[in-house]
Amino acid sequence: MPGNTFGNMFRITTWGESHGMGIGVVIDGCPPGIPMNESIIQEMMDRRKPGSSVASTTRKEEDTAIIMSGVFEGKTTGTPIMVMINNKDAKSGAYAAFAELYRPGHGDISYDAKYGFRDYRGGGRSSARETAGRVAAGAVAKAVLKKENITVSAYTIALGGIKAEQRDMTVIDKNMFGCPDPEAAEKIKARVEEVKKKCDSLGGIVEISAKGVPAGLGDPVFDKLDGELAKAMMSIGAVKGVEIGAGFQAAEMLGSENNDAITPDGFESNNSGGILAGISNGDDIIVRVAVKPIPSIAKEQKTINKSGVATTIKMSGRHDISAIPRINVVCEAMTGIVLADHLLRQRAIS
Amino acid sequence: MPGNTFGNMFRITTWGESHGMGIGVVIDGCPPGIPMNESIIQEMMDRRKPGSSVASTTRKEEDTAIIMSGVFEGKTTGTPIMVMINNKDAKSGAYAAFAELYRPGHGDISYDAKYGFRDYRGGGRSSARETAGRVAAGAVAKAVLKKENITVSAYTIALGGIKAEQRDMTVIDKNMFGCPDPEAAEKIKARVEEVKKKCDSLGGIVEISAKGVPAGLGDPVFDKLDGELAKAMMSIGAVKGVEIGAGFQAAEMLGSENNDAITPDGFESNNSGGILAGISNGDDIIVRVAVKPIPSIAKEQKTINKSGVATTIKMSGRHDISAIPRINVVCEAMTGIVLADHLLRQRAIS
Amino acid sequence: MPGNTFGNMFRITTWGESHGMGIGVVIDGCPPGIPMNESIIQEMMDRRKPGSSVASTTRKEEDTAIIMSGVFEGKTTGTPIMVMINNKDAKSGAYAAFAELYRPGHGDISYDAKYGFRDYRGGGRSSARETAGRVAAGAVAKAVLKKENITVSAYTIALGGIKAEQRDMTVIDKNMFGCPDPEAAEKIKARVEEVKKKCDSLGGIVEISAKGVPAGLGDPVFDKLDGELAKAMMSIGAVKGVEIGAGFQAAEMLGSENNDAITPDGFESNNSGGILAGISNGDDIIVRVAVKPIPSIAKEQKTINKSGVATTIKMSGRHDISAIPRINVVCEAMTGIVLADHLLRQRAIS
Amino acid sequence: MPGNTFGNMFRITTWGESHGMGIGVVIDGCPPGIPMNESIIQEMMDRRKPGSSVASTTRKEEDTAIIMSGVFEGKTTGTPIMVMINNKDAKSGAYAAFAELYRPGHGDISYDAKYGFRDYRGGGRSSARETAGRVAAGAVAKAVLKKENITVSAYTIALGGIKAEQRDMTVIDKNMFGCPDPEAAEKIKARVEEVKKKCDSLGGIVEISAKGVPAGLGDPVFDKLDGELAKAMMSIGAVKGVEIGAGFQAAEMLGSENNDAITPDGFESNNSGGILAGISNGDDIIVRVAVKPIPSIAKEQKTINKSGVATTIKMSGRHDISAIPRINVVCEAMTGIVLADHLLRQRAIS
Repeated sequence: MPGNTFGNMFRITTWGESHGMGIGVVIDGCPPGIPMNESIIQEMMDRRKPGSSVASTTRKEEDTAIIMSGVFEGKTTGTPIMVMINNKDAKSGAYAAFAELYRPGHGDISYDAKYGFRDYRGGGRSSARETAGRVAAGAVAKAVLKKENITVSAYTIALGGIKAEQRDMTVIDKNMFGCPDPEAAEKIKARVEEVKKKCDSLGGIVEISAKGVPAGLGDPVFDKLDGELAKAMMSIGAVKGVEIGAGFQAAEMLGSENNDAITPDGFESNNSGGILAGISNGDDIIVRVAVKPIPSIAKEQKTINKSGVATTIKMSGRHDISAIPRINVVCEAMTGIVLADHLLRQRAIS
Repeated sequence: MPGNTFGNMFRITTWGESHGMGIGVVIDGCPPGIPMNESIIQEMMDRRKPGSSVASTTRKEEDTAIIMSGVFEGKTTGTPIMVMINNKDAKSGAYAAFAELYRPGHGDISYDAKYGFRDYRGGGRSSARETAGRVAAGAVAKAVLKKENITVSAYTIALGGIKAEQRDMTVIDKNMFGCPDPEAAEKIKARVEEVKKKCDSLGGIVEISAKGVPAGLGDPVFDKLDGELAKAMMSIGAVKGVEIGAGFQAAEMLGSENNDAITPDGFESNNSGGILAGISNGDDIIVRVAVKPIPSIAKEQKTINKSGVATTIKMSGRHDISAIPRINVVCEAMTGIVLADHLLRQRAIS
Repeated sequence: MPGNTFGNMFRITTWGESHGMGIGVVIDGCPPGIPMNESIIQEMMDRRKPGSSVASTTRKEEDTAIIMSGVFEGKTTGTPIMVMINNKDAKSGAYAAFAELYRPGHGDISYDAKYGFRDYRGGGRSSARETAGRVAAGAVAKAVLKKENITVSAYTIALGGIKAEQRDMTVIDKNMFGCPDPEAAEKIKARVEEVKKKCDSLGGIVEISAKGVPAGLGDPVFDKLDGELAKAMMSIGAVKGVEIGAGFQAAEMLGSENNDAITPDGFESNNSGGILAGISNGDDIIVRVAVKPIPSIAKEQKTINKSGVATTIKMSGRHDISAIPRINVVCEAMTGIVLADHLLRQRAIS
Repeated sequence: MPGNTFGNMFRITTWGESHGMGIGVVIDGCPPGIPMNESIIQEMMDRRKPGSSVASTTRKEEDTAIIMSGVFEGKTTGTPIMVMINNKDAKSGAYAAFAELYRPGHGDISYDAKYGFRDYRGGGRSSARETAGRVAAGAVAKAVLKKENITVSAYTIALGGIKAEQRDMTVIDKNMFGCPDPEAAEKIKARVEEVKKKCDSLGGIVEISAKGVPAGLGDPVFDKLDGELAKAMMSIGAVKGVEIGAGFQAAEMLGSENNDAITPDGFESNNSGGILAGISNGDDIIVRVAVKPIPSIAKEQKTINKSGVATTIKMSGRHDISAIPRINVVCEAMTGIVLADHLLRQRAIS
């Protein structure tokens, strides 16, 4: 398989390059009869729009989602839903200078190794812009989950080394970083502005939680729910780490501390992150992902050109300081897609 | 797809329960002409044998690998290789007492939610014993990689909170924990013995590195090499976190720190873990996994029975104190399988 | 898997309904560096245009192929190629009358059983219009095959009961039925005009041959080359039968007649249709498909409405008399896709 | 994908060579709680045993099915069911003489082209013996279907050019050819004996019908139910043609003849073979397959050796005269597997 498809019974295939004609996604396997229209998709798409936080690029993308197929009279038909976004504000000229250079931290060098050449404009297929299709698919997945009262949300729990000390979900939409700790959000803002001046960039951590997931989702062995979530998250460009529940913390715990005691009223703790032996146990699903700093920085960096000759590079384009918070909705979308897929898979054997 | 198959062009399917007739694996897609015999597989299998370290159970498993098909006159034929291990030392009686109870930290409760009932003997399909098939497949994968001079190794870099401060690969085989730091290995031994007395268990961190991987492996978007490795690792029972290169550390770095400068002689650092935009860049692949403490402990724990009534449980069977170091070879095997798969996938488009 | 994707290493996913916004295809896995542009695709698309023969509808479809992604500076990039055709001349009003009726020989009744409701306009997803995406993908597949000097062609060997008695490939493009027998083509023309007057329709047989296919393509057991071709053909709406080489004729032959004798210069006959044990043997691949008559006829037919009440139906829309010859290029495209897929699969293990 | 796996939600993977240690199948995705034991499987396996008709080899195969996993206390657990058959009466010496020769009509020459070499003993992986695993899986599939009152049966409708003129299902088990026409069965017997004396072999036609299939199974476009059945059938070694309902006959019919009129009581005819637009319509599923004559004949035939030098060959082993009737149960099994798969797939979206 060539790698642009994800999921089994709820299955998405994305297409499109950053500065080509457009980008999009084919969503196959969505059950029929789910209420769907462009507003539902647009609402979720708007959350990854540039310019929504001080950490983001000012590149303007309308990102208008067009449903090309699979929806009839306001409902999904069960056939492939193709959602397309035409590319508009694509100044590919800005990238021509980098056609012969390998940007550090980017896939330019590995793409050339794989394919022999590449569409160098804006990262081509490796552009974060590809994730717009995932978000559109995530909106459809979330509509499928909604019927079962399953909800998914993603929020920033660390950025630039500053950590959220609390999880107040009511404030997530009230600060520009999608952070559940208002004080941390303030400190993050200061940190971002400081780093921006230094022409540098920042990484952070996103947490995703899913509530209402019934026990029994996930397949044993290779398609464990946590395995699928790990792939879903690590398939997002900037992600370098994934953990479930206690995650890396569990490596330092005793068994008696890490085991979640079971009571008639449920689990006493959630170190498992809602997944035991790869199958949901009815508790909240908790995933955390490490997001690396944006590699495109205006600082001078050492690199080589396509002929292997040493040179330097400064990226003066319109770039985000951090992939967070724009990446949050992508994490949320991918989590929704995994859960919708396994919801359908579980129905097949029930 | 039902979840017991992994990989695309190099594809494995495992079968079998802990205390059934046997366990095994079908390896499909191995190129023809690779030298193969039972000794090659057995050698790798022996590394996950119980009793090889003070942290492991004394349960004796011969784990004799039998090649049932796909090898003719000492070479792979290109057809499915089935490797089987008959179950022998399976005292299922020891588990009968737990048939009606849910062991904390185990998949008993989620399996029952999924399937309505379960083979309760020794965890059935969710038993770590399932990984024997993965290791057999890993031995075949490593033989495929060997032809291209690609090597994979896994080693313990933390156990019970004690961390390896160095990476001396020459000592990995010289201590019972597969640790590249002899001093840390000594401390780990003491820690394990202390916790054993307290009837508790420990977690840790395994690092896997692959050398000689050519640039260009991995598919963009969903089947990114790191995405595939993340799934491969998280599909191993006890794993709760995966990171690539700088991993969670990257979340706290500046872009200028995290970007690996490119020089005519290669990369100046390896925060990327050898993978850029999901595709190998020619540097060493570096993966780390967080392993939770063994959930089976002799300490009393709160739980419920199948009827939902509160009770307590003590697991007095023969259990490991830590999944490390037995799990190391499983991580190594899964890494080998991912790399062999993508090696073949890359050939298809070259 | 939801069913709108075909192929493994060369993989296509079609989307779109007859009277929606448009239709299209995502082609994933095409190797990089293949010369490609819209003219190459358009040329093949034009062969399934309506109005090209007396047997076809006069519905005008421009069917202008737009390459949305995956091609850069005249070459494929190795990333997904999305080809789109906007729907234009879509008089959905003509179908409103049939929204509540089940057209005999059509999928209306089975779609409603599957999904609960359907996009009734022009057959929605089950429309032959879906095959435009396949043809676009076929043009890309044929470009991949061309590099290896593999060619594929499809031609009419029977229509309305009149059979081609010879295989003169030089005349295929010289009659409106794509028939390799000019005399048969004349008789077919008369037959079509006669049946047209009677408001009825006709079926026929298409033969597809592929030349230059190297020995060794096809996977044993389930993904036999003939198995894959059988699925590819039978997945085309009007096809009710598929045979390879001697096909149904083989059922009446002796082993000594049917076996193709092997000589130093090749096979003495080609009853195998170029495939032995599911793997190409270097001879021409020969496939034949039975195409049923167009079910949409202006004659009155018995049917029921959605409430199960008996009624009658006459379809007065603009319909073909026969799916042949428009279907020929679809058969050719699907054959090309299967061969391109297996060409890449074979490279993976070589 | 390497080709030894079939199905999506109900998925089988076969392994094993004719003269290796054994053969078998992993059945993944079988729902939990289905009553299952070795007798159920053995009963179906016994129907493909050699020696059951005058047309079959006298090679004695016990073909004892052993369930290695996935069944606990008489019920399927939802985890992989591995069924194994040890090879016993395997006189590989009989084949050594053919190691350097290509048997006409066999895959020897194409296997060598694909893999560079082959396990020549008894056809290795291309042996009809591989189908024993399919039959075991078919027994499990039929148990899944039985819960929904779906039944599948296969019977001989032509052998050696003699055709069944009627479909008296009550006599299928009463003649050695599984023929629903006792008179035809008599003639077939005479024909087989005549051809046996001439050291030659015969082909024929098998019909498979499935009753009780609910409307709505099958996926549109590529995974049409007829497309899947076509692949399933054509993946059986000796099959050279597949047709659904009226099949090749439909190519000669008028639309008004071929369309099945719909009435409140169902369809007036079944030219569709129970499938419209790739989806079951509630009527009986009707499939027919053309089976070529057994290629192994004692008559002298022209061939070449591995060095390409012309020679002749006579196959004096213990061979069937016709793959029918032993192949019938294989066709039945594959049909059951396709239906079980689509039954589960349909549940996922319902």
